[in-house]
Amino acid sequence: MSRAGLAALDARDPLAALREQFVLPAGVIYLDGNSLGAMPRAAAERVRRTLDREWSQDLIRSWNSAGWVDLPQTVGNKIGRLIGARDGETVAADSTSVNLFKLLAAACRLRPQRRVIVCDCDDFPTDLYIAEGLAALLGDHIELRRVRADELDAAIDDDVAVVSLSHVNYRSGAMHDMARITALAHRRGALMLWDLAHSAGAVPLQLADCDVDLAIGCGYKYLNGGPGAPAFLYVAQRLHDRLATPISGWFGHAQPFAFEARYQAAPGITRMLAGTPAVLSMVALDAALDVSLAAALDQVRAKSMTMCDAFIELVEREVDGHGFTLASPRDGARRGSQVSFRHEQAWPIMQALIAHGVIGDFRAPDILRFGFTPLYLRYADVGEAVRILGELMRGGQWRADAYRTRSTVT
Amino acid sequence: MSRAGLAALDARDPLAALREQFVLPAGVIYLDGNSLGAMPRAAAERVRRTLDREWSQDLIRSWNSAGWVDLPQTVGNKIGRLIGARDGETVAADSTSVNLFKLLAAACRLRPQRRVIVCDCDDFPTDLYIAEGLAALLGDHIELRRVRADELDAAIDDDVAVVSLSHVNYRSGAMHDMARITALAHRRGALMLWDLAHSAGAVPLQLADCDVDLAIGCGYKYLNGGPGAPAFLYVAQRLHDRLATPISGWFGHAQPFAFEARYQAAPGITRMLAGTPAVLSMVALDAALDVSLAAALDQVRAKSMTMCDAFIELVEREVDGHGFTLASPRDGARRGSQVSFRHEQAWPIMQALIAHGVIGDFRAPDILRFGFTPLYLRYADVGEAVRILGELMRGGQWRADAYRTRSTVT
Repeated sequence: MSRAGLAALDARDPLAALREQFVLPAGVIYLDGNSLGAMPRAAAERVRRTLDREWSQDLIRSWNSAGWVDLPQTVGNKIGRLIGARDGETVAADSTSVNLFKLLAAACRLRPQRRVIVCDCDDFPTDLYIAEGLAALLGDHIELRRVRADELDAAIDDDVAVVSLSHVNYRSGAMHDMARITALAHRRGALMLWDLAHSAGAVPLQLADCDVDLAIGCGYKYLNGGPGAPAFLYVAQRLHDRLATPISGWFGHAQPFAFEARYQAAPGITRMLAGTPAVLSMVALDAALDVSLAAALDQVRAKSMTMCDAFIELVEREVDGHGFTLASPRDGARRGSQVSFRHEQAWPIMQALIAHGVIGDFRAPDILRFGFTPLYLRYADVGEAVRILGELMRGGQWRADAYRTRSTVT
Repeated sequence: MSRAGLAALDARDPLAALREQFVLPAGVIYLDGNSLGAMPRAAAERVRRTLDREWSQDLIRSWNSAGWVDLPQTVGNKIGRLIGARDGETVAADSTSVNLFKLLAAACRLRPQRRVIVCDCDDFPTDLYIAEGLAALLGDHIELRRVRADELDAAIDDDVAVVSLSHVNYRSGAMHDMARITALAHRRGALMLWDLAHSAGAVPLQLADCDVDLAIGCGYKYLNGGPGAPAFLYVAQRLHDRLATPISGWFGHAQPFAFEARYQAAPGITRMLAGTPAVLSMVALDAALDVSLAAALDQVRAKSMTMCDAFIELVEREVDGHGFTLASPRDGARRGSQVSFRHEQAWPIMQALIAHGVIGDFRAPDILRFGFTPLYLRYADVGEAVRILGELMRGGQWRADAYRTRSTVT
């Protein structure tokens, strides 16, 4: 994988033109789109229109005239197309944490005779914290069973109400086999909930075909919806009628503007909404999704796998003997759109990389994490990032360049 | 209250200059700021900066460099100054519905021997729905007791864990005596939770002085934070150590970026946070609050009361005999910053008003609701709104002008 080889890949990249749809800073190779996606031009334009026209001029009327009131469903259905859901199975709302709380609570009520939530002990912490908090709230009714990925088969027994897993691990990028584990959970009578934070927009997903029950995910990573963009949640249609949200707010009511005194759940996925949507954040996500929908997701996946393979190959060649160990699956089919390496000095090395314009992130205690977003990255960027890493390691500058800046939010 | 009298009030209005800090549509008298506040210029500028600089150029680094990670506390403390809270007692987060769920659940756990939540049966529906949903989730543990305002004394008995009331009623504008009812709840051993959606930014509040336990409120009404702006929640400092949120997400963790496997609640009010904040919506609210903080809240209240009194006087004179009945308290001290009238034909009349540039809203079955925001309304606007109402009623145009447009979201 030479510089010329990477240039040749760029020359025939069917996604190359999409880069122009993003605003990117000069002099930066951004390998942190798995933490905060770059800004699509259309997202900024849409927010400006919402300020200049919808909010300031049309004011309250925009709830109808600009479609604000339907944004959870409009945006949700766009995400649904990216994750293999049917129309009407996905809404955008709240944060990933809040959506997980809603779905875990709803799942436990769908399996009232069962009392266990199975989680991956290496999952993103908020997923574990939310399950822990729900179990504490419900007292003796619910127990949290934390297991390693290789213990899942034994852990899913007749007492399990729901299995809650991240499809792609935030740290290593390792990807679960969604079809296999969903089928396993179903054979044992449990519901299956997938956290798609590190999958949606990066990996082709077939939630309906895999018969997935429940899913949540994040709008600000590969979906490029902006910092803290609204999250999403998915529920298979066959469960809608029996589904009860614990946070039964007015946007989930059958007739929110009738101001009825008693709660009556809306039909379909809408019942999982709670409060008023954060419109400025929601319209940015709405416009950003059009960029993802304009790309063929199998092309995105193919470019992502080639980029990640090239990155691994180049790093292992360029800094051989400098103490880096691959922390991600080597097999691209078992990996999301990121590559992680372990290094004893991961933190100062990442600070030096950032200071030299290569933005990835650090995950304690020893992980350097690099995300690859095919919508706006070039193959040449992969080569250039590794070249800079090699220079830093050979010259030892990373010891001096260990800035105090930190990239913190996944 | 003549046209000349209103002009004289405008001429000596100490808040008059603040109108310039808002972008307002031409030809509109906006009496719906209690549903969606108008856009402060600074809010739009701040969002543009977040797009053009923080998100697109600085990307993930902005979580630290632009202070995104601290927005819940930064914005919360600004709101705290408007509601008479101490520093560190208020955070901005999530929606009002989600925050109410968190605080009601936390309140029930602070009073484990008690099983009743007391609510006002005329409260804004989402408040009732959320309490209903929590009670359903917790099964037999919790019972919802819906009472009229005049039944509160009898309803708050030894079995009540928390009393949950809106300070200002969304329909009538009637305002509870916060000090008296809080003291009543405390005498019976219950916690007191106030929904400040229709108070914050409009009415001087003294939460700390009234010894209020818990409060929630809305960022998009009198705080002008933009459509679906993040909500806020307040908890008295004396309760922080014992407080447990049901939605224990990573932003409420003591060390969110240590990625620990076990949840450990952050010190103070921060533990009530859940997921990643919606930054674009949050920065708009942050900048909008500076406008409210620049005004003396007692001057805001005085102008609001004068405006509302003038509106009532003028309506009762101008459309006497046309079937309008005051639905708000006549005594300004017992009223928030809105005036409501009942009319059999409230809906078509409001549509006609909107078509003629006077934007208020309709609340089923028969309420015309007019909100008065002293930061950007002139006394002359009050006179002009009533003049237009008078013309419509005398000419009967409201029958023809009943457009299908509806303003829906409170």
